[in-house]
Amino acid sequence: MIDTPLNEFALIKRYFTRPRKKAFLGVGDDCALLHVPPTQTLAITSDMLVQGRHFFPHTDAKRLGHKALAVNLSDLAAMGAQPTAFTIALALPTAHAAWLADFSDGLFALADQYDCELIGGDTTRAPLITLSITALGYVPAHAALRRDGAQNGDDIWVSGELGDARLALAHIRNEWPHQAPLTRNELAQIYQRLEQPYPRIALGLALANLTTLARQAHHADPSSPPSQITHACAAIDISDGLIGDLTHILERSACGATVNIDALPHSIALAKQPQDIQRRCTLTGGDDYELCFTASSTVRHTIEKLSTSLALPLSRIGKIDAQPGLRLVDQKEQPVIFSQSSFDHFSDTP
Amino acid sequence: MIDTPLNEFALIKRYFTRPRKKAFLGVGDDCALLHVPPTQTLAITSDMLVQGRHFFPHTDAKRLGHKALAVNLSDLAAMGAQPTAFTIALALPTAHAAWLADFSDGLFALADQYDCELIGGDTTRAPLITLSITALGYVPAHAALRRDGAQNGDDIWVSGELGDARLALAHIRNEWPHQAPLTRNELAQIYQRLEQPYPRIALGLALANLTTLARQAHHADPSSPPSQITHACAAIDISDGLIGDLTHILERSACGATVNIDALPHSIALAKQPQDIQRRCTLTGGDDYELCFTASSTVRHTIEKLSTSLALPLSRIGKIDAQPGLRLVDQKEQPVIFSQSSFDHFSDTP
Repeated sequence: MIDTPLNEFALIKRYFTRPRKKAFLGVGDDCALLHVPPTQTLAITSDMLVQGRHFFPHTDAKRLGHKALAVNLSDLAAMGAQPTAFTIALALPTAHAAWLADFSDGLFALADQYDCELIGGDTTRAPLITLSITALGYVPAHAALRRDGAQNGDDIWVSGELGDARLALAHIRNEWPHQAPLTRNELAQIYQRLEQPYPRIALGLALANLTTLARQAHHADPSSPPSQITHACAAIDISDGLIGDLTHILERSACGATVNIDALPHSIALAKQPQDIQRRCTLTGGDDYELCFTASSTVRHTIEKLSTSLALPLSRIGKIDAQPGLRLVDQKEQPVIFSQSSFDHFSDTP
Repeated sequence: MIDTPLNEFALIKRYFTRPRKKAFLGVGDDCALLHVPPTQTLAITSDMLVQGRHFFPHTDAKRLGHKALAVNLSDLAAMGAQPTAFTIALALPTAHAAWLADFSDGLFALADQYDCELIGGDTTRAPLITLSITALGYVPAHAALRRDGAQNGDDIWVSGELGDARLALAHIRNEWPHQAPLTRNELAQIYQRLEQPYPRIALGLALANLTTLARQAHHADPSSPPSQITHACAAIDISDGLIGDLTHILERSACGATVNIDALPHSIALAKQPQDIQRRCTLTGGDDYELCFTASSTVRHTIEKLSTSLALPLSRIGKIDAQPGLRLVDQKEQPVIFSQSSFDHFSDTP
């Protein structure tokens, strides 16, 4: 197959036009049109990926298509929203058929998994590949997993394992000379975590459902004590690192937290590493796209069951408390000092 | 004032956080949440601007903020939608306070004019300034100005004047040696057309209203002949040039058109230019962001009155006919040959 440059309209048509499903009007007009069910609020999120900043130039196009959508769906998951549709603005140095075929394969494989429809976008030329996706989802207004929902005494949980994406990044960059060697399988696994993260949609929906049930219970018996009915969850997806992202919940909820760093879930590959690398990866490694969420301790058993039914590890890593700030302790409850701050796209030291 | 680089979260907070209005939840959570009124469909559009491709590096930041939003609102106008909210993904080489202050001034001045609320976004670093906005608007489903709505016999109209943006671009590039000299005022005017286009929102809403009225009339008296009740308009905004954009309407509506090139509205600055420059600018000059729309000839007088009430020139430039393709004629109805095609972001000759 000759990898021919295409013109803008031909490439949109070939790789990004698909039969319309839920949209009232899809790709190919000035706007897409969407009917939002009256029982739902619309959840909207936009994320941008830039070559050299968020991914390496040689990144597999299929994985890149997956990741570009995954990071946006992850924001919907963190809100408890059901993905519905998305737009993509795509800037490329050249429009090569083979690259576009792979990219759209990865993009649509993930989109189809959640019946999330491409409804519009824009293509243009730029020296670096730049992708900006806006994802739309539905969530009942009072079920949304807002960052301001954490309450004193709540448990803090994280899904999956933390830090593998950061370890993979360090490996690619040859960043830490004392990094312990890994097997081929371990390397494949940490690379996949970096390049092909899976948004925790099912978990987000289950937590939103838990929030709805709690509100319904309170509505049925408003005299029940708040400690027994307040199951509303706060959630965030871990894109910039646990410390930075959890801090957003604490700030918005006007509370503090104590986190047991020995309870942070991590892979065997990361467990092989020296302690400083482990801590750096689990505490401040970005790009994990796991969910960090809070929930009343009264639903602890429900969440443990959820972990089983979703076949997804859910680890209880600490507690929300009234004292502002984030305190790290080890399993003997001794304070741990860790100075590394979260990833900031406009500071030079990630 | 020292133009200090800021970190990502500080700059979002300083320049892009404003009090929430219509959104149920705005900037600062994983997603924004929006209640869509049940009588409305949601119109969604995404456009990306890349430095060096869509604007020059020295472009005034305030005008750039305006234009980045304007090109998206222009798509809402072409759909007949009322702007409601937008997200912005912003990639910058550095985050300088002075630039961001100017940029957000221009952005919000236009947003406030239409009560269009910033509800989320993303900021990152990239070697070139790259802006991707997704704009959301509301339109009753059956009032939308779709590209597939043109019918044989309809008049073709354009708003405002065509070609000044392209003339300004040529002037900046020193592109055409035989370009006639312009006064300082004329230059200021064509530069403003390029850098600060105004979306034709009021026109789009009026045309959508005309479409609604026509459908209501048909509903009240279904026996009325179609020629008298079919006032539904097709519309597109002229971003890639009249020929290319009108062709999208023709293709989607499965019809053809004859356009009188002597009827194309243009400025005094453009009228001073040689005929080849005039034609190239009016027929294929992108970046005009005027609306090209079709309407039944039975509402010709209504549209002329609309021009007066909106204080916006509306010029009747041709007719939709059954024969596929676009035919250009002069005012003596003689065929005109013009070979220049529309602007394509992946071809090298705009």
